[in-house]
Amino acid sequence: MSNQKKFAVILAGCGVFDGSELHESVLTLYSIVNNKGNYEIFAPDISQHHVVNHTTGNEMNETRNVLVEASRIARGNIKSLGNFNAQEFDALIIPGGFGVAKNLSSFAFDGADCKIDPTVEKVIKEMADQGKPIGALCISPVLVAKILGDVEVTIGQDEGTASAIEQMGATHKKTGHAEVVVDKNKKIVTSPCYMLDADIVQIARGADNVVKEMFKLF
Amino acid sequence: MSNQKKFAVILAGCGVFDGSELHESVLTLYSIVNNKGNYEIFAPDISQHHVVNHTTGNEMNETRNVLVEASRIARGNIKSLGNFNAQEFDALIIPGGFGVAKNLSSFAFDGADCKIDPTVEKVIKEMADQGKPIGALCISPVLVAKILGDVEVTIGQDEGTASAIEQMGATHKKTGHAEVVVDKNKKIVTSPCYMLDADIVQIARGADNVVKEMFKLF
Repeated sequence: MSNQKKFAVILAGCGVFDGSELHESVLTLYSIVNNKGNYEIFAPDISQHHVVNHTTGNEMNETRNVLVEASRIARGNIKSLGNFNAQEFDALIIPGGFGVAKNLSSFAFDGADCKIDPTVEKVIKEMADQGKPIGALCISPVLVAKILGDVEVTIGQDEGTASAIEQMGATHKKTGHAEVVVDKNKKIVTSPCYMLDADIVQIARGADNVVKEMFKLF
Repeated sequence: MSNQKKFAVILAGCGVFDGSELHESVLTLYSIVNNKGNYEIFAPDISQHHVVNHTTGNEMNETRNVLVEASRIARGNIKSLGNFNAQEFDALIIPGGFGVAKNLSSFAFDGADCKIDPTVEKVIKEMADQGKPIGALCISPVLVAKILGDVEVTIGQDEGTASAIEQMGATHKKTGHAEVVVDKNKKIVTSPCYMLDADIVQIARGADNVVKEMFKLF
């Protein structure tokens, strides 16, 4: 067991419209274990930007906590991102969902000028400084681009998001379903997942391709 | 596309302790599509029995709706179970989680004497009457046993649950990780998933084995 590569997974809540996208999150966890790694799950202990009724798309008059909701995906086995210690992990991976752009950052509102949650920023910086692979699915590459600047990533084909990424000083490469961009120098691995109009098998392949490319970077 | 087998999936909320277990739910959706089927997701439009903080296990002073929370797993693409029409589907599958025993039924509180949500009962009866395969993961076989009585199912190795299933008039067979029990006569396919102390790869195999056995029953 001790030779297994240990992935830290950052979640942003529980649900595509206000948290972490559930298919991407679960299929990422599955790919890590299926490729003989293991994982520990983290989320920031902060309030969600808002709560969205996923049947209507409307905001609900409720307050929910990102860590508490993300723990649904983790089956209760989750830690506050404030307690993250980079020395304990071989790799970091961040699934997508609007929570990444609303809770982990303000990208949904501020685009290239977004703020990143300070615990998220610290974790990404530390892992990059230690030369450890970072995987980011769907919209999550914006976090990596904002914090690290000169990296090559993909979010698929959305021109507005790609343009914001270029404004952050990063390079965007267009990709299709389950395709992966690997920045070998910075050890950043990205794939568009639900930034494209995908089905769940395409999501599984995207997550698995990211995890497999991360293993090649160890 | 029109030759694809169409699965109805019943969800019970969003999270292992008060809704549908997320790994089982997502990996079931994945297996259906990966085996060349398609799915439509349903949940009853009722209040959850309660809301559990998944980091502490404690009840929260909140009210949530089963359909609204399940729609997080469905990415908004979900229907009320009251609108289910058995003629439109080739198969029915029910992932597990405590929501099955708290929202879809009162099994968590009443055991063999449990009540089943009337829309859930109607759907299971109709699909069975039409000779269509029904898959049930984890704790969900208790629904099938309670409604159909004389069926052969598995929930793994938990003696209390197995005994309750026998009291309902069904037969329980002990199984290990990802093993499946197929009642060929009644077309019921079951596997224990997280009723055993499993990892996510074992859950994926369990869900996939159930879906594959269901395809053999068409």
